[in-house]
Amino acid sequence: MTINKNTKFLLVGLGLIGGSYARGLTEKGYYVEALTRKDKDCRYALEHEMVKKCKSGIDEEMIRNADIIIFALYPDTFIKWIEENGHLIKPGTVITDVTGVKGCIVEKIQNMLPPMVEFISAHPMAGKEVYGIENSDERIFYGANYIVVPTQRNTQEGIEACKRIGEILGFGRISELSPEAHDEMIGFVSQLTHCIAVSLMNCYEHERLEKYTGDSFRDLTRIAKINEEMWSELFLMNKQALLEQMELFEGAFNRLHDCLKNDDKEGMKEMMRISTQRRKIFDI
Amino acid sequence: MTINKNTKFLLVGLGLIGGSYARGLTEKGYYVEALTRKDKDCRYALEHEMVKKCKSGIDEEMIRNADIIIFALYPDTFIKWIEENGHLIKPGTVITDVTGVKGCIVEKIQNMLPPMVEFISAHPMAGKEVYGIENSDERIFYGANYIVVPTQRNTQEGIEACKRIGEILGFGRISELSPEAHDEMIGFVSQLTHCIAVSLMNCYEHERLEKYTGDSFRDLTRIAKINEEMWSELFLMNKQALLEQMELFEGAFNRLHDCLKNDDKEGMKEMMRISTQRRKIFDI
Repeated sequence: MTINKNTKFLLVGLGLIGGSYARGLTEKGYYVEALTRKDKDCRYALEHEMVKKCKSGIDEEMIRNADIIIFALYPDTFIKWIEENGHLIKPGTVITDVTGVKGCIVEKIQNMLPPMVEFISAHPMAGKEVYGIENSDERIFYGANYIVVPTQRNTQEGIEACKRIGEILGFGRISELSPEAHDEMIGFVSQLTHCIAVSLMNCYEHERLEKYTGDSFRDLTRIAKINEEMWSELFLMNKQALLEQMELFEGAFNRLHDCLKNDDKEGMKEMMRISTQRRKIFDI
Repeated sequence: MTINKNTKFLLVGLGLIGGSYARGLTEKGYYVEALTRKDKDCRYALEHEMVKKCKSGIDEEMIRNADIIIFALYPDTFIKWIEENGHLIKPGTVITDVTGVKGCIVEKIQNMLPPMVEFISAHPMAGKEVYGIENSDERIFYGANYIVVPTQRNTQEGIEACKRIGEILGFGRISELSPEAHDEMIGFVSQLTHCIAVSLMNCYEHERLEKYTGDSFRDLTRIAKINEEMWSELFLMNKQALLEQMELFEGAFNRLHDCLKNDDKEGMKEMMRISTQRRKIFDI
């Protein structure tokens, strides 16, 4: 599977991420078709020339014609789609996804696929606080992180094809993690931060809070505008890893709380020195 | 005290915030002098035409000549400065500050000042993760929030002069809070967020974390690069209010933790709906 300008991509799902994939691939001159759930998204994609062809629902011919299928669906919907339609995928097809949790998805999907269909999972670490095809924008990927999540069952060729998609879309760092390491990492850097932002907005209802906030509060709570359907599902699918990360965070937060309570200025300063040092690495 | 182009401003302290005040006022055509602790900051300010006159240390004539004195010092240093030099301030002078906590400062300073010198406290809610005059930039104030913190002892004239400074510097929303309400608010929107960012960077040392982070983690931890000297002092000066805010946050965070632990999807979704709704108000 070498990706070239004859490669036929099929996007399944044209929400924010799927739509942005479609725009990015089309923009770079690749041939893209798409299947969506809603007629109106299909019309939108065609009107905006995001794809060459689009149908709502299932189209057996489009599925058979695809060389690479990219699933941009919620985890549950993705599994259900493969259960119902996986048999329509022709041998030799590579399929990939954009799902934010991996442990409970990757092997399950790999086990359901017909022989000779390779599923190589990926996580594009980009997004917005708004949803839907109308907000899709290929530029959200530029310079962002892209994680490829292979298992023992993946081929080097499949992994390379998956990485190539990340390159085409303009991602910055492209790396590999096992499903378990991915979920631990994502529990920390993505899900825990969303838990914090949600908690922060829940703990207090100040009247006219917006009059008093500085940038720091705005930055910390930007992601508190959250798609509750998707994120509650992602949290539950990564329950154990996320609970562990939440408990680690609480441990550190309690340490700081106790330093303050005990007037332990040195203890606070030490934690601040550590955070400053670790955070600086990101800006290099 | 009506501010006009004959008004003589004296900045005491030319760090990030003091330097930005100096730049902003000079830029708008006002006459600004400054006192600094370090010779080199003095030279920097003069070389960059941020002020008309600058001395390091104390200059009695400059203090007597000022119509408005703006203190941009750490809280402890501010109190010490007034203790030692407050008697040099001439009657009719208005003094203001930029201090991030108020309860333990405002009345104390007001009690120490000579008669006919009015202290009207302000909190410019702007900053950067970097420090010092070299990083000062008047644009950090544009559109930001500016809180005036009067007590019973302030005059309407003093309050108006203080607000006028905020307007001149280009702040967006200018509002008034009592010292107690200010400290509660700041405990929540500013100090608590810094506690969270510091804790988040302390709870886990992932190798090469930067390869996997998305925007949300970067945004939440931007302020984890923190001036430990200043912030540990600010935390301790606002200890009770901050401890309360930390405990409120922990309560909400634990609620989310327990929802997840108990597979309570509806409970998580409800918290996410609340956070989304509350956070949206900021973007109007």
